[in-house]
Amino acid sequence: MNARHLIAVEPATRPAMHAALCEAVVASGGTVVAPAEASGLVFADPAAADAFPAILAAGPAIEWVQLPYAGIDGFGEHLDTTHQWTCGKGVYAEPVAEWILTALLSAFRDIPRYAQATSWPRQAGRNLLGARLTVLGAGGITESFLRLIAPWGCDVTVVRRQSEPMPGANRVVTTDQLLDAVRDADAVIVALSLTDQTRGIINRTTLAAMPAHAWLCNVGRGGHVVTDDLVDALTKNTIAGAVLDVTDPEPLPDGHPLWHLDNCLITPHVGNTPEMGLPLIARRVADNTRRWIAGEELIGTINIEAGY
Amino acid sequence: MNARHLIAVEPATRPAMHAALCEAVVASGGTVVAPAEASGLVFADPAAADAFPAILAAGPAIEWVQLPYAGIDGFGEHLDTTHQWTCGKGVYAEPVAEWILTALLSAFRDIPRYAQATSWPRQAGRNLLGARLTVLGAGGITESFLRLIAPWGCDVTVVRRQSEPMPGANRVVTTDQLLDAVRDADAVIVALSLTDQTRGIINRTTLAAMPAHAWLCNVGRGGHVVTDDLVDALTKNTIAGAVLDVTDPEPLPDGHPLWHLDNCLITPHVGNTPEMGLPLIARRVADNTRRWIAGEELIGTINIEAGY
Repeated sequence: MNARHLIAVEPATRPAMHAALCEAVVASGGTVVAPAEASGLVFADPAAADAFPAILAAGPAIEWVQLPYAGIDGFGEHLDTTHQWTCGKGVYAEPVAEWILTALLSAFRDIPRYAQATSWPRQAGRNLLGARLTVLGAGGITESFLRLIAPWGCDVTVVRRQSEPMPGANRVVTTDQLLDAVRDADAVIVALSLTDQTRGIINRTTLAAMPAHAWLCNVGRGGHVVTDDLVDALTKNTIAGAVLDVTDPEPLPDGHPLWHLDNCLITPHVGNTPEMGLPLIARRVADNTRRWIAGEELIGTINIEAGY
Repeated sequence: MNARHLIAVEPATRPAMHAALCEAVVASGGTVVAPAEASGLVFADPAAADAFPAILAAGPAIEWVQLPYAGIDGFGEHLDTTHQWTCGKGVYAEPVAEWILTALLSAFRDIPRYAQATSWPRQAGRNLLGARLTVLGAGGITESFLRLIAPWGCDVTVVRRQSEPMPGANRVVTTDQLLDAVRDADAVIVALSLTDQTRGIINRTTLAAMPAHAWLCNVGRGGHVVTDDLVDALTKNTIAGAVLDVTDPEPLPDGHPLWHLDNCLITPHVGNTPEMGLPLIARRVADNTRRWIAGEELIGTINIEAGY
């Protein structure tokens, strides 16, 4: 039990992250040691999954591995049942929910047009206050979004696989009711994870069901939207516009038609940036270190069989 | 008492507003009549204050006048103590508070740069979640803003004349502590009314006290900011940037240096547009019509001596 405070934080290839996570371990009563002595490993470079096997091989006493991702990302092949695995599940939801508010307000309030003006522009814009919003997906991002949007008096429909109620949503419907759920929306927000069931969920048919004044906001994955169908809808103005934090292909290549549509705002996958995420994952590492040392249940445990 | 349901809605020079306000009167049990028969007058064109004396002269039985403004605007010379006066005090605060959130999120999340990109832009942005905000002014706009920002976990300092506490603010300080209050702010928000005391409150000294990463958001009046001092601060990057819904001069003339600064976003006085405001003032008219007919106290009464 005594060795549980000995935690490795590796690799050190991303200095700012390494420093922040070491600090988090120490703040929770841990001691940062080399893998050879460690009972736990905090993996400290999201881009260096390849370095993992060598680190683990050097740490025969490591029982617990904390990953820096929201999911398992590049670790699928490394997962085993001999270690206890945790990740940053849920910690990155808040900045992504903040992005949704940013996207909605920028779109409704006409910010992209104002940002390009070099003389006093025509007044425009409408309110998000009291708007009708349809959110696809009922995970952590939607949960955080509903918390942030609560004071705005919006009418929110959540579309999810099972029709369990969700605090903060005015109603929850199942995916087979998607077309009805977007029919009178002021904005449709995609906050799904990408699966075979959700790929291409925003397509010609979904877009055609949306009213002409509705905006699309995609903070899921590029593959949720059939890009050619979206270009078509935006070109013909069958919807008001789109704000995309993810695209297909991504990054969107130079010369792509979406770059030149007035009613399309593209942000470069910044729902959660490394800078925003670092204090959040550090807090999770601090929390789990404290729990590990105390022998308590860890947060964000990975279900090896389910792979998330 | 019986004649109190007879309300004039004049002039009819702005058809959409006239229709909406007539509808509001009728919905509350009123009957829309000519001024000659009316006990109350709902003034229905914000730009037509000049038409007021003739309307009032035609309505000898008019006891109550409802103005369509947040204040008294062009009616200063018309106010008298023989009528009861009400205005739209407070009703326009919510869209303006929504503008503040739009400005902060656009600024923090780098939306103006993304809006101008024609190839995949560099990732940037920081969170409004948990930010330190300093708000100048403690009126209806600040009240609404504090309500909207509540879930974001921000640290909010309100600067006002008297140091009365304000629900939702972490602290309230008086104007003499302004420089201290902006010194560690991530954003400084001006939501004041323009008086001799507040004119030019954002000047060389205030700007110099703000940290280099701080944004300025002005939703008060252009005269609150000394424009040349702001241009200087933005050019030298002594602050991060500014989002201005009001300017001095306004409209900002073509060729003005503010149009060409990357770190300045200008919106054309759209905190509350006529389209956003119409349903809000209509609700106030409906409310006051019901109260007038029932002989209850009206909302948004104008203090003739104070002039607001």
